[in-house]
Amino acid sequence: MENKNDSQFKKDFSKKGKTQSTELRQDLVTGDWVVIATGRAKRPEEFASNRRAAIEEDSGKPCFFCYPEETGQEKDVLLYERANGEWSLRVFPNKYPAFTRGRVPKHYEEGPYFSMDGTGYHELIITRDHHKQIAQLNVLEVAEVIDAYQERYIDLMNKKSVNYIEIFHNHGKEAGASLAHPHSQLMAIPVVSPYVQSELDGAESYYKANKKCAYCSMVEWEIENKKRVVFENDDFLAFCPFSSRAAFEIWVMPKKHKPYFERTSDKDKLGAAEALQTAINKIYKALEDPAYNFYIHTAPCDGKDYPHFHWHIEILPHTSNWAGFELSTGIEISTIQPEVAAEYLRNI
Amino acid sequence: MENKNDSQFKKDFSKKGKTQSTELRQDLVTGDWVVIATGRAKRPEEFASNRRAAIEEDSGKPCFFCYPEETGQEKDVLLYERANGEWSLRVFPNKYPAFTRGRVPKHYEEGPYFSMDGTGYHELIITRDHHKQIAQLNVLEVAEVIDAYQERYIDLMNKKSVNYIEIFHNHGKEAGASLAHPHSQLMAIPVVSPYVQSELDGAESYYKANKKCAYCSMVEWEIENKKRVVFENDDFLAFCPFSSRAAFEIWVMPKKHKPYFERTSDKDKLGAAEALQTAINKIYKALEDPAYNFYIHTAPCDGKDYPHFHWHIEILPHTSNWAGFELSTGIEISTIQPEVAAEYLRNI
Repeated sequence: MENKNDSQFKKDFSKKGKTQSTELRQDLVTGDWVVIATGRAKRPEEFASNRRAAIEEDSGKPCFFCYPEETGQEKDVLLYERANGEWSLRVFPNKYPAFTRGRVPKHYEEGPYFSMDGTGYHELIITRDHHKQIAQLNVLEVAEVIDAYQERYIDLMNKKSVNYIEIFHNHGKEAGASLAHPHSQLMAIPVVSPYVQSELDGAESYYKANKKCAYCSMVEWEIENKKRVVFENDDFLAFCPFSSRAAFEIWVMPKKHKPYFERTSDKDKLGAAEALQTAINKIYKALEDPAYNFYIHTAPCDGKDYPHFHWHIEILPHTSNWAGFELSTGIEISTIQPEVAAEYLRNI
Repeated sequence: MENKNDSQFKKDFSKKGKTQSTELRQDLVTGDWVVIATGRAKRPEEFASNRRAAIEEDSGKPCFFCYPEETGQEKDVLLYERANGEWSLRVFPNKYPAFTRGRVPKHYEEGPYFSMDGTGYHELIITRDHHKQIAQLNVLEVAEVIDAYQERYIDLMNKKSVNYIEIFHNHGKEAGASLAHPHSQLMAIPVVSPYVQSELDGAESYYKANKKCAYCSMVEWEIENKKRVVFENDDFLAFCPFSSRAAFEIWVMPKKHKPYFERTSDKDKLGAAEALQTAINKIYKALEDPAYNFYIHTAPCDGKDYPHFHWHIEILPHTSNWAGFELSTGIEISTIQPEVAAEYLRNI
């Protein structure tokens, strides 16, 4: 089954490996995208052994994020310092980016398929304390994290190759965190993600049918109805969504209609920080420090307006693995009613 | 934050718990569905301890699937026996179904939200040998499994509440298998899954634009191009898809245009069994017995025709966990090019 293409391909591949280029490939049928990031490419035979590798904690080696300069990380693109001159938060490019810098992504064809360069930015947002996760930070410290998210967002949103910026946080090995030191990630990418596109389309249809934002309808109903509310302050609501994808899932949402995360005011950042920290702290206590992911969904920065969208944060505790049914259908199965989860979290 | 709704809710919940009813809830914005299956509901405080529970293997207790009668499983709906009278494969309803029997699902409203009864069927397909997974079965034994899939599919496809039938297999704890004994699952459900809907829509658009089935275009190109082919026989092709969602992902596809899995001929079932067994066996060797999922995507059984669809099996090895980026965007990141994975698997 060997053919001429194979040797040509090996040449291309080894070249690609050196330049750490990444690729976006489109599914021929659904139009969805996947990323092939060969920057941290392993040889095929390494997958079996790597599969069993444990999280790099207490390995005796210095932590990459406690000592970014000493361990040869990229240069900071943002640095926050305390009054005493010590750094409290820093942002630097990922050494193994899933999206790599470049001007305008080129498009390619192979037979019936399409792909493009994985052009973009991939940054790491690091808080100082190795042992303090978001659940243990105070509200001002979490507000500083949100400040950094916003500052980096604004710096990257108008770059030519950037149409969407995804900010997310993985905590714990089961949730995909490969390093124990708390860190968030930012990926500025050339395409709008299918999930966000589905929310944008749905929000627009809902607006057309109801002359009202779908998320505002949700917020109103949840505040009135109370049974899925986990926490609220003047400006933000934290609640277990009616159609939770995961057990103990929480959404943190501005109470007023706000399409664009980057426009969040200082007062609102404090409100968001309090709601986010409280929600994660409740999950931390309820599930005894589980792995979790959270991420921001906001309007794309592709030059269009999205007046009907409503930015929010989704927090997904990792209580079980996606199995065949979820992977095949996109329908998640949860074994606890969101109302029961919310009541339990409320009372913590 | 306690209110009157809470006590009413508790009553409803405890009632629901007893009848093992399940619920499909619709996302207000995207229209996607989630399942809330309270049949195996845990109390909220049990999630933390259960999170750490290991796979039930070698616990000293008799295996539920080796001794289905002795351990109080539901009655068989299908039983295959060898010439010596011993059972070789059996199918029985899941004791903790995600979808429960009932005639026509009722629809409900709560404020702006919609939900419906999780009406349907949830069955387990068990092969006899506790220690032999698909990778170790011979082709005839795998063909028997596919026979059972088809026989159960045909029995359930015309039930009133059934519009889609999902058949899938979880192997290994990381892939969501809660019992070690090899088993597949069938869920006959009242809605068409979002992923399959997206494939149906895409296949139809592709047909309109190209006067050709998208999957047939794929098969033709892959056979000609060879670099992503893992295995082929007369009737089936196993290949790493161009836009693989996971490292070492393999699709098994009929070479000829076939929309409907249930119409597979005996000859084709043998071809599918050989390709499926070979593909899984190669993954088993390459990744040293990894966890994996596989599932069938076929045309819905909702009374409509889907002439442009092309049934196939997708095999997803579990080499990493979905993290924040994937959960947030629906864009998967893979660290190996499908061409490199295919070459490695081909040579095993």
